[in-house]
Amino acid sequence: MNLILFEPQDFVAEQQAVIQGRRLQHLLQTHNAEPGQQFRAGVLNSMVGQAELLNISSDQALFHLSLDSIPPEKLPITLILALPRPKMLRRILQTVASMGVARLILVNSFRVEKSFWQTPFLQPEAVHEQLVLGLEQAKDTVLPEVMLEKRFKPFVEDRLAALSQNSVKLVAHPGNYAACPRALTEPVTLAIGPEGGWIEYEVDKLQQAGFTPVQLGERILRVEVAVTALLARLF
Amino acid sequence: MNLILFEPQDFVAEQQAVIQGRRLQHLLQTHNAEPGQQFRAGVLNSMVGQAELLNISSDQALFHLSLDSIPPEKLPITLILALPRPKMLRRILQTVASMGVARLILVNSFRVEKSFWQTPFLQPEAVHEQLVLGLEQAKDTVLPEVMLEKRFKPFVEDRLAALSQNSVKLVAHPGNYAACPRALTEPVTLAIGPEGGWIEYEVDKLQQAGFTPVQLGERILRVEVAVTALLARLF
Repeated sequence: MNLILFEPQDFVAEQQAVIQGRRLQHLLQTHNAEPGQQFRAGVLNSMVGQAELLNISSDQALFHLSLDSIPPEKLPITLILALPRPKMLRRILQTVASMGVARLILVNSFRVEKSFWQTPFLQPEAVHEQLVLGLEQAKDTVLPEVMLEKRFKPFVEDRLAALSQNSVKLVAHPGNYAACPRALTEPVTLAIGPEGGWIEYEVDKLQQAGFTPVQLGERILRVEVAVTALLARLF
Repeated sequence: MNLILFEPQDFVAEQQAVIQGRRLQHLLQTHNAEPGQQFRAGVLNSMVGQAELLNISSDQALFHLSLDSIPPEKLPITLILALPRPKMLRRILQTVASMGVARLILVNSFRVEKSFWQTPFLQPEAVHEQLVLGLEQAKDTVLPEVMLEKRFKPFVEDRLAALSQNSVKLVAHPGNYAACPRALTEPVTLAIGPEGGWIEYEVDKLQQAGFTPVQLGERILRVEVAVTALLARLF
């Protein structure tokens, strides 16, 4: 937790806010927090700055906030990701938030197990929790937009054109394709498949939607590693 | 498991080898394996190619191996990493092996908890197991060299010069430094700190040893994400 992220319901007065639960425990256990200490802080989807600890008990901590800076810029990317298995999903949500992805679309794919869509980790509160952990890590406040698309074909045929308009459209796929480009400055829409990869039908559909296949070399990476590697290379 | 990795003790004849345990369970559960099927295979620290399944039971599987190709090239990098917490260590060992790091040096640092050095995950067999998982993922066979350095100062003062000779020497550190370079082709020695980062004394010592501080932007990433992001950007 490199930043204390306050949410609207934490405010008790104009510049005063209270934390409890996980964030309080972290302060007590990791920071040996005492009144008068300053912490880096931010408000969800808003500014960043400093929070002065006014008082703290085992139940709650009260801060005075002075927020004067804007959070780090987002990466101009829409990441389309075949829904990962639940345990990996949680880490990927954190990673995506910490790296600054602006929009994440979790899609179905032939190799996504149906049961993955039933996980409680896809509930809005659970997704929110992991995204917040990623934001706290990266000292950001702005939640990525997250969309769920449980049917691949209507998503690609009916909605993807509008969502990927005016962006460089890439689909990551091992094979005899161009190497993934580096250091782009324009908006990107990037599609990353599940463990085992996209099937050819899916790559064909994405190509018909204007996506260019790109690859990262002959090593096959776990999805969460591939997500980070592709983002780090693209921007 | 994108490649069945055979170790020397698996061989029962010149081109025949037997697997049991984890690898066998994976074959039975994921591949519905039957005699006659071909699998991508390799031999530890040696060639890659195909393995034909000759017979399989719930106890073991026997293969005929035809190995005719060399494994993917390693990245020309020595990664110096402050010892991560045990749970993260296991994933990082897999990641480092899958991305093709040639040499990994786990070092002490002021912010590494002493207890981390006691973890059973640092035992040679445990390290080997995670590295093998990474190699199987990336279809590689060649183990990265792994070294443990429990004392920072004598390592940096007495041994680092020889280990980093003729390489680009970089230390990842947030701050007002140059951006991490991209797409290098020469050998690199890269030092990545623990959660919370190197302390200034450590950065100073590394700078005295010829290392240049570089940064990845204002977002602070978890160590495992930073490792992948830096490797993907450097090569």
